[in-house]
Amino acid sequence: MNYNNLDTVDAFSKLKKQKVTDIKAALTKDRVESYMINAGGGFSYNYAAMPVDDHIIDILQDLCEEQELVAKYKSLLGGSVINLGEKRQVLHQLLRGSVLSQKVMVDGEDKGLFYANVNQKIASFSEKIRNGEIKGSTGKPFTTICQIGIGGSDLGPRALYLALKGYCTGTNLKQLEGKFISNVDPDDAAEVLSHLDMETTLFVLVSKSGTTLETLTNRDLVLSKMRQCNVPGFNPARHFVAVTSKTSPLASSHDVLDSFYIDNYIGGRYSATSAVGGVILSCTFGYEVFEKVLEGAHEVDVLSLEPDIRKNASMMAAALGIYLRNILSLPTLAILPYSQALSRFPAHLQQLAMESNGKHVNRFGEKINYSTEPVIFGEPGTNGQHSFYQLLHQGTDITPIDFIGFGESQRGMDGEVEGSTSQQKLVANLVAQIVAFLQGQENDNPNKRFEGNRYSSLMVAKRLTPKSLGALLSHYENTVMFQGFLWNINSFDQEGVQLGKTLATKVLKGCEGDEVLMAYLKLFHA
Amino acid sequence: MNYNNLDTVDAFSKLKKQKVTDIKAALTKDRVESYMINAGGGFSYNYAAMPVDDHIIDILQDLCEEQELVAKYKSLLGGSVINLGEKRQVLHQLLRGSVLSQKVMVDGEDKGLFYANVNQKIASFSEKIRNGEIKGSTGKPFTTICQIGIGGSDLGPRALYLALKGYCTGTNLKQLEGKFISNVDPDDAAEVLSHLDMETTLFVLVSKSGTTLETLTNRDLVLSKMRQCNVPGFNPARHFVAVTSKTSPLASSHDVLDSFYIDNYIGGRYSATSAVGGVILSCTFGYEVFEKVLEGAHEVDVLSLEPDIRKNASMMAAALGIYLRNILSLPTLAILPYSQALSRFPAHLQQLAMESNGKHVNRFGEKINYSTEPVIFGEPGTNGQHSFYQLLHQGTDITPIDFIGFGESQRGMDGEVEGSTSQQKLVANLVAQIVAFLQGQENDNPNKRFEGNRYSSLMVAKRLTPKSLGALLSHYENTVMFQGFLWNINSFDQEGVQLGKTLATKVLKGCEGDEVLMAYLKLFHA
Repeated sequence: MNYNNLDTVDAFSKLKKQKVTDIKAALTKDRVESYMINAGGGFSYNYAAMPVDDHIIDILQDLCEEQELVAKYKSLLGGSVINLGEKRQVLHQLLRGSVLSQKVMVDGEDKGLFYANVNQKIASFSEKIRNGEIKGSTGKPFTTICQIGIGGSDLGPRALYLALKGYCTGTNLKQLEGKFISNVDPDDAAEVLSHLDMETTLFVLVSKSGTTLETLTNRDLVLSKMRQCNVPGFNPARHFVAVTSKTSPLASSHDVLDSFYIDNYIGGRYSATSAVGGVILSCTFGYEVFEKVLEGAHEVDVLSLEPDIRKNASMMAAALGIYLRNILSLPTLAILPYSQALSRFPAHLQQLAMESNGKHVNRFGEKINYSTEPVIFGEPGTNGQHSFYQLLHQGTDITPIDFIGFGESQRGMDGEVEGSTSQQKLVANLVAQIVAFLQGQENDNPNKRFEGNRYSSLMVAKRLTPKSLGALLSHYENTVMFQGFLWNINSFDQEGVQLGKTLATKVLKGCEGDEVLMAYLKLFHA
Repeated sequence: MNYNNLDTVDAFSKLKKQKVTDIKAALTKDRVESYMINAGGGFSYNYAAMPVDDHIIDILQDLCEEQELVAKYKSLLGGSVINLGEKRQVLHQLLRGSVLSQKVMVDGEDKGLFYANVNQKIASFSEKIRNGEIKGSTGKPFTTICQIGIGGSDLGPRALYLALKGYCTGTNLKQLEGKFISNVDPDDAAEVLSHLDMETTLFVLVSKSGTTLETLTNRDLVLSKMRQCNVPGFNPARHFVAVTSKTSPLASSHDVLDSFYIDNYIGGRYSATSAVGGVILSCTFGYEVFEKVLEGAHEVDVLSLEPDIRKNASMMAAALGIYLRNILSLPTLAILPYSQALSRFPAHLQQLAMESNGKHVNRFGEKINYSTEPVIFGEPGTNGQHSFYQLLHQGTDITPIDFIGFGESQRGMDGEVEGSTSQQKLVANLVAQIVAFLQGQENDNPNKRFEGNRYSSLMVAKRLTPKSLGALLSHYENTVMFQGFLWNINSFDQEGVQLGKTLATKVLKGCEGDEVLMAYLKLFHA
């Protein structure tokens, strides 16, 4: 396998000579219909409003071939040590099933079997929680599942939980309430705990290492609150489960009812489809819902093997991202889901993409000379339209956009006002924005002029279901992976978070004579 | 008054020759202690980790003088037509009290008196809601206040509500529950309504024009849900109040219990301290809490008159922002509050800043040739540390940061783990990040190297209270206003939102033969 920096690749040199920026006239009905890829799980990926033409797409195809995207993906799937810095395999796709139908043996263990066994355990445990076979220590059935975790143990699971709540309400599935505590700020736990009944709440402690500062601290806050629970027979240990690695101090603890294992080959930001997401989603909505998420994700994992960029949505999205970032020099990306259920999905993608590819060295640890991950932000539409869209339309920089939308609402509670339903209005606004951003509008008054050529892509499906949600998640995970291959960086480590941790420990030890730290600390107690 | 483009101003030319980028060595104890300004409401603004020196600050002072920031602010306060595009006065500071102690007469009305009267009405109404003098139509006291509004009628009030909830829990103030419906996505209303008891809920309909699509649509969804409420005597009109302009169709409606007025001189994104925020905050927490927010905001409005940039925090923040954006060419800004209570404050600031100053024309409607508002994003710390901080530390671009932090938690529910409380850990992490970002760290392994010179400012107060929250809000409002003056743009119109609205209407009318719109629409019903 060749691991080359982006700026050493022939296709990249060709691409630099092919800048297309004005595509207003190119946006036709035919283009909308043809610049489209089956993205899995019922999704289509449409890139008609992206600043490319067929010739550029051909070069992007060359680029993906030169950088051996599919071969590297297969190598990852096969269990090679892709995470070179930490010397680890990267196996999150295997959580959803075997893509290459070959066993992946790591540490003498069949990893596919290991993940499948954890899922079986989740299925059985969650069923018992839901049917009341496992009850709280005072004999009451559990009504609430509260996850304690931060980063990947919070953002992904929370985004998925919120995304599925409406879908499950639309069915007749029994729902338990899901809650999340993440921040070390004690006001976070205090707010969440103020609404919980300790007797009917099961806490899911999530930390791969079992040593995450925020998570252990919040567990202890919960424990001290539990001690105030004076109901006879109340036993804290029967209100905790752990999601952790086999070797972590949490795993063997007598302080938890049960443990569900993850391992070093599942990065935090890629762990939503592991037990990290699986336990809470299965307990609140049922394992069959979580299984559908896995099914949608797996479908995309299979589609991502396709070598033709015009048939591989996550590869196309990855290559277009490189074009926007490294050829057109655009430093930001807005992710705008027209779905309130996806309100926290952009926050998950911030971690997924910015922590994976916000790097300044290549996979061998050598400094690189081109830009990597842009800044990602986003809020659901139509809300964003009444907020920052002014800048997107008429600001001085161009911000490319990922739109996400659905034909139908999740719950079907809707009504007609002025001749259209809310869902129709939502879709109309999304369609209108794509075209408004791209085509713009002339006006003699520059203040009413829209320059257009504000590029966007669209992920569109009939409805946000567990399966389409899984596909959407995996689409982004694989896009991030392919972009890492294109940039020749390691998308699976995160050395950039270490220094802050080290210095925080120093501050907690009294600053060890560091006058600058002490001066800042003093400001908080003036 | 001179209204000149930024690139025509002498001080700006001087500034371009004064680029300072490496300030690692400059960050000393003395600098931390001296690069600091009383920012009002108990806040200090610290800019020690900003890439400036005394000489540059002198030039920034000249820039503010040449652009006549204080004179323009006084002109705005005095009631001049600052919003030239829409030919309107800009009076949101007057909501908090008279800064110049002179009457502002508009449309033959003493506007200070008008706003004070609305506040009196809010005080009296909210007291009656809270003590049960005004009850729901079936005789039950109100327990929940649900705001229906979008954009400025949602983001600011929601951010403030969440920011005050913990504070009020820490006191013994009676609390009513606050809820918000904003998105035209019917799943938004469906989710919120699924938790409400119609008999005990008061809905606050917020729309200045009384014609906002999303808000009227959501009102009708609520009304249709109310019709399913078969309790004898239930009367929807007694469960609605309106916050709207005197002349709006909502104001005179018999379908509401009462109306609270706003006017054309309060832009949506500047309306959090008007009845738009006042009604829900006063009903849920008590008018005295809202009054403290106004007091904190007013204190900052007065401090903002100070001509010396070293004593005027919002002017300093504004000028530093220009330096980062137009001299150092940095296209983004992260806003990172170390406070879970401020979880939605960055979303409010996205609207405030990006809708105000995301413009490509000057205040006279002429195209300008320099960058304006950067893209703003943010999540609370320490959560963000486990997410996108990797990119902030080791990405290829520099993202400047606004940190916000507090010495004490809001609720005081805390406990010691491994020798420190959660709040101490939170503060230690914030302090550590400021220093880690700026000083970086050498390492022979480039993957473990932190280049440093990642700039930040810090707004720090003892505790997040109604008063300090009001100050924080106003600090940002005035920063945005001053930046508008520096860029010579109109921060108070939003022409960029029109085209999308027009095209959405076209789509709802069947696309009127526009093939591109039709092709996109078809994707949603494939």
